[in-house]
This record gives sequence, C-alpha cells and structure tokens, in this order.
Amino acid sequence: MRASIALDDPARRAWAYLSRVVEPPCHELAALVGCVGPIEAADRVRRGLVDDDLARRTEARREIDHVADDLELLARRGGRLITPDDDEWPVLAFRAFGGALARAKPRTGPPLVLWALGPARLDEVAQRAAAVVGTRAATAYGEYIAADLAAGLTGHDVAVVSGGAYGIDGAAHRGALESDGITAAVLAGGLDIPYPAGHSALLHRIGQRGLLFTEYPPGVRPARHRFLTRNRLVAAVAGAAVVVEAGLRSGAANTAAWARALGRVVAAVPGPVTSSSSSGCHALLRHGAELVTRAEDVVEFVGRMGELADDQPRPGTPLDRLTDVQRQVYEALPGRGAATIDEIAVSSGLAPAQVLGPLSLLEVAGLVTGSDGRWRIIRTGPDQAAAQGSAARLV
Amino acid sequence: MRASIALDDPARRAWAYLSRVVEPPCHELAALVGCVGPIEAADRVRRGLVDDDLARRTEARREIDHVADDLELLARRGGRLITPDDDEWPVLAFRAFGGALARAKPRTGPPLVLWALGPARLDEVAQRAAAVVGTRAATAYGEYIAADLAAGLTGHDVAVVSGGAYGIDGAAHRGALESDGITAAVLAGGLDIPYPAGHSALLHRIGQRGLLFTEYPPGVRPARHRFLTRNRLVAAVAGAAVVVEAGLRSGAANTAAWARALGRVVAAVPGPVTSSSSSGCHALLRHGAELVTRAEDVVEFVGRMGELADDQPRPGTPLDRLTDVQRQVYEALPGRGAATIDEIAVSSGLAPAQVLGPLSLLEVAGLVTGSDGRWRIIRTGPDQAAAQGSAARLV
Repeated sequence: MRASIALDDPARRAWAYLSRVVEPPCHELAALVGCVGPIEAADRVRRGLVDDDLARRTEARREIDHVADDLELLARRGGRLITPDDDEWPVLAFRAFGGALARAKPRTGPPLVLWALGPARLDEVAQRAAAVVGTRAATAYGEYIAADLAAGLTGHDVAVVSGGAYGIDGAAHRGALESDGITAAVLAGGLDIPYPAGHSALLHRIGQRGLLFTEYPPGVRPARHRFLTRNRLVAAVAGAAVVVEAGLRSGAANTAAWARALGRVVAAVPGPVTSSSSSGCHALLRHGAELVTRAEDVVEFVGRMGELADDQPRPGTPLDRLTDVQRQVYEALPGRGAATIDEIAVSSGLAPAQVLGPLSLLEVAGLVTGSDGRWRIIRTGPDQAAAQGSAARLV
Repeated sequence: MRASIALDDPARRAWAYLSRVVEPPCHELAALVGCVGPIEAADRVRRGLVDDDLARRTEARREIDHVADDLELLARRGGRLITPDDDEWPVLAFRAFGGALARAKPRTGPPLVLWALGPARLDEVAQRAAAVVGTRAATAYGEYIAADLAAGLTGHDVAVVSGGAYGIDGAAHRGALESDGITAAVLAGGLDIPYPAGHSALLHRIGQRGLLFTEYPPGVRPARHRFLTRNRLVAAVAGAAVVVEAGLRSGAANTAAWARALGRVVAAVPGPVTSSSSSGCHALLRHGAELVTRAEDVVEFVGRMGELADDQPRPGTPLDRLTDVQRQVYEALPGRGAATIDEIAVSSGLAPAQVLGPLSLLEVAGLVTGSDGRWRIIRTGPDQAAAQGSAARLV
C-alpha cells in the first residue's frame, strides 16, 4: 500500500529521479535538495538550471527517466523508498556524517535516499546494531566465529548488519537468521541485482525476514568504488563494527576506517597468528581497535545512536571489563587491609590455584596490588584518580 | 678456577651463608649488607646482633651452616655465585627494583646473590633478552608459536628467558636451543633440584649451553610462593615479557604483572577465541599489552636495559609500526596532493586490489586520509602534532 501511494506521489517520484541522476554521494545535490526540496531540485536538474559543478555531475544522466519503471519494480517486489521525509529515516545514525567529519571529508555524506526491502524498519535496526564484517576468504574458524557472534548478538536484541558478501558477511547474516534475529544487508548495487549471485537465496531470505537496502536504484551493478561507498553505510547504521577475519589487504579494513571516522567503536576478533586471514584483525588491534571474543563484548559497545554518551559513559571504569572470575576474586578482597592467597580463596570460594591468575590480571589493570604474598585493593576516590592513574601505569 | 677460589674467599662464603639464612627477598637483610658489607652482615646475623625484624626473619636458619657443602657442590658442577661485587651482576636490569617500585612494593627487591650454571654471562643476557612465558597447559599452536618465536628472537641476538616449566616455557627454551641461540632458565629452587623432573634433560642442556640461575641455594625445593618470587627475576632480566598462551587463571599473568611493575614491555600473542589457552592473552591485550605475532615485533621492544630511552624513543611514530606492504603503499602516495587507487597501484608496484586494505589501515592509524576516491598523506610537522592528534582520534 505504501508502494502504490509512492507511484503517484510527486515527492517520491522526485526522490527516485534524484537517486539515479548522480553517482552517490554527491554533496552538491544534497545541498540543493536541502535548500529547495526534492521536487524543485529534480525539476532544476532535469532542466539543467543548476550550478556548474552539479551540472557536470548530472549531465550524463539528467535526461534518463526510469522513475515509473523503478517505482513499479519496487512496488512489485514489496519494497519501499526510505527518504529523509519518512519516520523510518535513521536521523541519529546519519547525523555522524556532519560536524567534524563533514569538514574532514567534504565529498562524502549521508545517502540521499534508500531503496529498501524487508519487514525490519531501518530506524529501529540502527538504534541497536553491530556491523559484523570480514574477508571473503574466510577460514572455517572465521565463519564459525561470525555466525556464533551474530547469533549471540541477536540474542541480546542487537541487529547484525553486513555487506552480503561471501565468507564472513554471509556467515554473519546466516547466524542471525538461524537464531531468528534481525539482520540487514547493505548492497552495492540495485535491489534487483543480487550480488554475489551465489548468495541470491540468502539475500532473498534477508529481504523476507530482515532488511535489504541500498542507495543505488534498480539495475545498478556493483562496482569496486560502489563497495567502498557502500561500506560507509554499513558502518553508519551500526554502533560498532566488528572485523572477524581480514587479511592485511582486505577491504574490511575500509569499513573499520569508516566506523572510526563516524565515531563508532571499531572492534576486531583475534585469531591464530599463523593465519593470514587474521592478520588484518591483529593490525587493527595494534591500531587501537577493541579486542572482542564473544557477543557480550560487543553488546557493551552498542548503544542507541546519539544516546550512547548518556547510556554508557565511556571510557568505563576498569571494573566494567572484569570477567566473572576476576570480579569474584576482586570482591573477595577485604575492604580495608590485605589478604593472602589462601584467605582470598576462602572468601571467594575458589581453589587457591585459581586465585593467582585473576589477581595478577587485576594487578596489571591497576586494581589491586600485591606485596610479600598479601594483596589489597587500590582505591580510586575522586581525589585519588590522579594517583591511581600513575599507579596503573606503574603496575 | 673461579669456583675453587670461591671456596676460600671469605666474601663468597659470607654471600653463600646470607643466601640461605632468609627466605628471599628480604629488604632488611639487603639493607644491612648495603651498610656493612657481606662479611660483617653475615657475622652479625650469625651472632643475632641485628634489629628485631631481621632477627625474626633469620632466627630459624641462622645457626645452619651449609656454606662449605653448598660451595663444593657448586664447584663440582662447574657453577658460580654471582654477587653484586661481580662484573656479571646485571646492575641495570636490577635497578628497576628501586625508585617508584621500591616505594610501591617495599617488601620486594633485587636478589641478594644468584647461584648460576652455564657458559652465558647474565649481564650479557640481560642486555638483550625477551621473556617468553605461558601456561603449562599449552596447545600444539602455543608450543609451535613459542618455539618459533624463540628461534626468531635468537636469530636477532635476543636471549630467551623463561621458567623451565612444561608447556610454553619448555617450548621456548627448546626453540632457542635448536637454533643455537642463548636461553636462560630462572629456577624456583636450588640448581641441584631439576624441576619439573621431566625437564631434567632440557635443564641440563640449558646449563651446558645457556644459563641456569636461581636465588635459592642448593637443596631448596620449589614451592608455590617461590614460583611467584622467581617470576620477578624472569621479568627483570628481560626487556619485554611475551605471554604466548595463558588461561584466565594462569600464573603467566604474574610474570606479566612483574614486567609491567618493572617498566618492561608486556606483550601477548593472540590466538583463537575458541581456545581457553589464549583467553589470558586476550585479557592482557585488553589491558594494554602489546600485540605481537612474530619475533620482529618483539625485537623492537628489546633494547639494552637502561639505554632503552636513548636507543628507541617510545612511543615511536606510527610509521614504525607499519608492515612492509603498508609502508610500500604509504611511500607510493605523493608528497603533495592526492592520488587515486590506480595511481597508487602504479607507483607502489602493487595491484590495485592490494592497495585498498593497507590504505584503510593507514587511514585508521591517522596517517592518510581518503576522500572521493583520492588519498593523501596527513603531515605531522612540529606545529601540526596537536592537529594530527585530533585527526587520529577522528579518523
């Protein structure tokens, strides 16, 4: 019903026209639409009444009018256009393209309009999503981790966004679908061009149960530069980008770079150092990506876009990062004074041999200090924060 | 010959007596020796003419005199005492026990004296060494990495220090020995008590070709607290401590904590997130340990003790951390202006498809910036350092 309205709606027809007339993203066109609205913008472009830059960008396609065909095809498949005028437009997710990023990368920006198919709403997906991406040349290890991570994320009501490619992307989508979770695939071509062809059935399932979307109108074929452009949308609609496996030359690092540029958390899963499919992940970890080993690690990074700062103050306290056993040991330490390993074992209920490892990691984290076989908590009061800062560097 | 002199030398006899009279480390005894020298200190302890604290610490053993037996056993095996009076004493390595650490952990300190066996000189080992440590419950992956890392380190004239235990320690020692490198095992008991018994032959080989040393006199059996005390020496004589595999409850984290406390680099090797033997490594990496995947990564952290700050300014520039391919791509970028992927491919000699991954990682590292398919270097002049700081956070 939405689709049948769209066929006659002049604004929708204008959006559809504008979506094809330039290769996205095009900040000149976005600026014009921002000033005069889509209908007037489409009219001016069609008649060539635009400034030189935009005239050059639209020259080749301004006389092409596929609008009726495009909207009919979309309606036939049960899809929809998502425009900035719609409630479904993920305003907060795309806000990250403004501000400092717009100054640093003036030639990028949010999509003009999105072609979408599937029951999931994009604004709801973007409120709580993680991108799970990686190399097409995945190992069995990587595919297992991607599927397991995706299943775990959906178990925490986190939607799994990826690029629909072979390897890690496909495993992530499948893991989410198999646990009845929401998954979204961002395409680098039109909705009617399933790519890669071997994933036609998978993409069909995602369109039936999750969400397929793209900034390209029907018939546009994926090309190298479109994958790069598409990656910014994978990063934008997710609170965190997790690279599961990537070689040093993998394009997955491009999605990670977009995530960082957009202020999203970049995370990577480590793997065997003997596996070249994990070397890109290790390189990302060296450059400051968060190390994640399970869905719970990712969930803590995924907040509601724009509310992140309120919901989850970051950087959190070191205590937030403890494992259960570490916390058990930490909490077994006396509030005042020190305790021996045996005393800590008794109060924690762990065997003495199980206490030492956690204690040492707590010491590395600057939370406890041991001396002469006795261990005590390092307290951080408001006026001790500076002191603990130096203790944490020391210990 | 050194050994036969030792039997008659009153200072050596005093050191040998002092080595057994307390359970090390004992800062009260170290302070007394520092004030009056070993001969006078031994005499006062023997006669009980010391303050209450030291009297209590030495009460149980002050009448035990094994000096002649100990020194004869040492001479018979071809070993030696290493004392602070000897050239071989690693002054710079043990200096780290002073200063802030001495104030934070007053009840620890350098060893009083060391019992040693083997052709390698401790001062030379400590000038350029890495500790390679980990769990006894190692996997085949961990043992392979430990041996390979150790072999690679010795190929760069880095000595491999470890604890002689089953699992990672043993694999590291073996890897060093098999590539004719220097390896040192720090024992938690006397030189005459090979521990674990299953490593008798390995420890024997280390004593013949590398170095065995311990602060415990002959006959002392390893005990749990002695492993912890021993770990501080493993950390102290190496410029970096590398944890190859460790469970969350592994004692290897204790060596890492000592390394951090002593101002050494703490590094860890990642592994499959499905392997509990790598979870301790992943926890260390989350807490700031350096991620290493091969010997070359470790070599850059291992300087000559005390000269590290001069030889290798740290933190280094981000350029220091590039892989060969990343550097190749970085250097293919024009000095001024921007280049497309295809232009970078031509000047780097790489295929266009090989350029993107490295470029994205360079972007994550804040070294280059891409916009609209064109890439440029981000320059850091003295007055642009602050600007790049914020760019690196942004991108």
